[in-house]
Amino acid sequence: GQLFKVAVLPGDGIGPEVMAEALKVLDAVEKRYDVKFERTHANVGGAGIDLEGRALPETTVNICKAADAILFGSVGGPKWETLPPDEQPERGALLPLRKIFGLYANLRPAIIFPSLTSASSLKEEVIAGGFDILVIRELTGGIYFSQPKGIDGAGRDRVGVDTMRYSVPEIERIAHVAFQAAQKRGKKVCSIDKANVLSTSVLWREIVINIAKEYPDVELSHMYVDNAAMQLVRWPKQFDVILCENMFGDILSDEAAMLTGSLGMLPSASLAEGTFGMYEPSGGSAPDIAGQGIANPIAQILSAGMMLRYSFGMIEAADAIDNAVAKVLDQGYRTRDIYQEKAGEKLVNTKEIGDAIIANL
Amino acid sequence: GQLFKVAVLPGDGIGPEVMAEALKVLDAVEKRYDVKFERTHANVGGAGIDLEGRALPETTVNICKAADAILFGSVGGPKWETLPPDEQPERGALLPLRKIFGLYANLRPAIIFPSLTSASSLKEEVIAGGFDILVIRELTGGIYFSQPKGIDGAGRDRVGVDTMRYSVPEIERIAHVAFQAAQKRGKKVCSIDKANVLSTSVLWREIVINIAKEYPDVELSHMYVDNAAMQLVRWPKQFDVILCENMFGDILSDEAAMLTGSLGMLPSASLAEGTFGMYEPSGGSAPDIAGQGIANPIAQILSAGMMLRYSFGMIEAADAIDNAVAKVLDQGYRTRDIYQEKAGEKLVNTKEIGDAIIANL
Ligand SMILES: CC(C)[C@H](C(=O)O)[C@@H](O)C(=O)O
Ligand SMILES: CC(C)[C@H](C(=O)O)[C@@H](O)C(=O)O
Repeated sequence: GQLFKVAVLPGDGIGPEVMAEALKVLDAVEKRYDVKFERTHANVGGAGIDLEGRALPETTVNICKAADAILFGSVGGPKWETLPPDEQPERGALLPLRKIFGLYANLRPAIIFPSLTSASSLKEEVIAGGFDILVIRELTGGIYFSQPKGIDGAGRDRVGVDTMRYSVPEIERIAHVAFQAAQKRGKKVCSIDKANVLSTSVLWREIVINIAKEYPDVELSHMYVDNAAMQLVRWPKQFDVILCENMFGDILSDEAAMLTGSLGMLPSASLAEGTFGMYEPSGGSAPDIAGQGIANPIAQILSAGMMLRYSFGMIEAADAIDNAVAKVLDQGYRTRDIYQEKAGEKLVNTKEIGDAIIANL
Repeated sequence: GQLFKVAVLPGDGIGPEVMAEALKVLDAVEKRYDVKFERTHANVGGAGIDLEGRALPETTVNICKAADAILFGSVGGPKWETLPPDEQPERGALLPLRKIFGLYANLRPAIIFPSLTSASSLKEEVIAGGFDILVIRELTGGIYFSQPKGIDGAGRDRVGVDTMRYSVPEIERIAHVAFQAAQKRGKKVCSIDKANVLSTSVLWREIVINIAKEYPDVELSHMYVDNAAMQLVRWPKQFDVILCENMFGDILSDEAAMLTGSLGMLPSASLAEGTFGMYEPSGGSAPDIAGQGIANPIAQILSAGMMLRYSFGMIEAADAIDNAVAKVLDQGYRTRDIYQEKAGEKLVNTKEIGDAIIANL
């Protein structure tokens, strides 16, 4: 059988509780498939700060380096919000992890499960039958990481500067990810830019058009980011794969996720070249409900599924996880965040819905 | 009586038709108040390109310079979409106008009229009773205008660069606009930034906090732009005034506008220091319905109202226009874009709804 090494970084808030359910699912996968997941736990985020003095301790980086993939929980909470931005759990852990491991391709599905359409703040007629968008966000370039960046001068003469920079190879490789993903889905890529204002966008659009020629079976369109923010609200079903640079992807992927109404359901993958990747829920650490055993572990479980799919090539097991989640929802199991007090729903806790998913595997 | 000089720039698509209704409203205001509006028409956008060779002809700039305010229609259409971005109607006219006239404060109301809540793609329970958000967007700085900007190198070695830069005075003056606007409304400012990633945002947040001390009656909060994109969808009523830098304001104001479901209803103002300003509908030139006399002129009429309010200090007349529009909607008048086929609605054309508004003045 195969052996995969997983760095397990539960983090803060509900992170550890939902991670426990994802690990149970990995146990179940080990029983059903000829595979072993060797897991090494490490501290990250607020837990990293409290136990080892920083959001991303060196021991954690080393554990991740020795692994085939990172399964990440969630980080952050009120306790650490007064730290300088650089040292806070989210920023201090996520940005260095992305850079150190070259996680340039962020895949953020925004899916409405047909049985949960009523959780969306969009009207039923706008989302009838659900929607299924995959936002592909460039994650290691653009205004997040380019230099110069900083505040110069003193007092009222200070000037803040950030730089958005993209090279051709950076655009090419993320475009390939988008077109290849689209080939396996709805065969449409909508590339987002602001080519009427940004030079990076002019280059972005030109390169995306070039790369598209290698994928004649995929339909390419372009949309300005301001229009995309509108079109997501107006008619989300028009989208299949949305391709964005880093900052636009940050904004639009969150907007798309909120449109589904079930943030606790959405996984994400951040991929490096090769098979290494980091997998994490799209939602936050929800400190308000942490420790009560009521959090929704589905995003974490689906993140583990994405790990099997993208880092370990275990397509069948990944599909089985996705299907088990869908079945459990169809059977009416609901954690509190997705409970609508409707007939046929069963209100369950974190552990119970985890068990139900495993039972359906 | 007073005399105000208005540069009238109808532009393309539905621009001329809806402008005609706004000018009729100005006629009506002249009759009721002791005031004259001296109007000079000028070409802009596609009309500028076709008639004078460029989106913002020099004659147009000079007419605007001689005026007390600019009433702008809308620009753009398929005919000019193959031009280089710099020369296209929107970009080629709007960005230079903003820069030449120092239009640093963009006010974009996103209002749901209670009688039109059903036009929104949001659920009734999310928007019951309507909402009223004012997005205040910095319009002459940030990544739109800062240097360096461009594409360097050749072939696959090319690199695109844009620069986001903000100075303290630039942040201070737009913050004052936001707090002063909030004082006249719901007394809340939510300042949008990405202070966990951008240096400009760190400076932005610090300066906004400083300026807030001069407005103790206004409650200040901060939100990351990605979260704001979510919160607008989740619960738009939580917002009163939203304060943004240029790019974030571009995205969030469009998202907020679309949430109202009635883009054809939303005016905007772009203000310079002093009383000069440019006023334009938030929607586009809608080339698909141009020339048919069916476009909704309300955004253009409300833009004229904002001109009276902000450039001419005619608060009473501006209020009268806002009230007349609300009354006409209550009376059931609907252009095609807001017609819902409900009892009590009267489907009317551009001219008829303009007449109805004037009758209610
Ligand atoms: C925490 C923050 C730095 C991060 C980002 O902006 O990328 C987060 O919003 C995300 O989307 O993962
Ligand atoms: C046309 C474009 C340059 C402009 C902008 O981005 O500012 C438009 O989207 C707007 O919001 O007025």
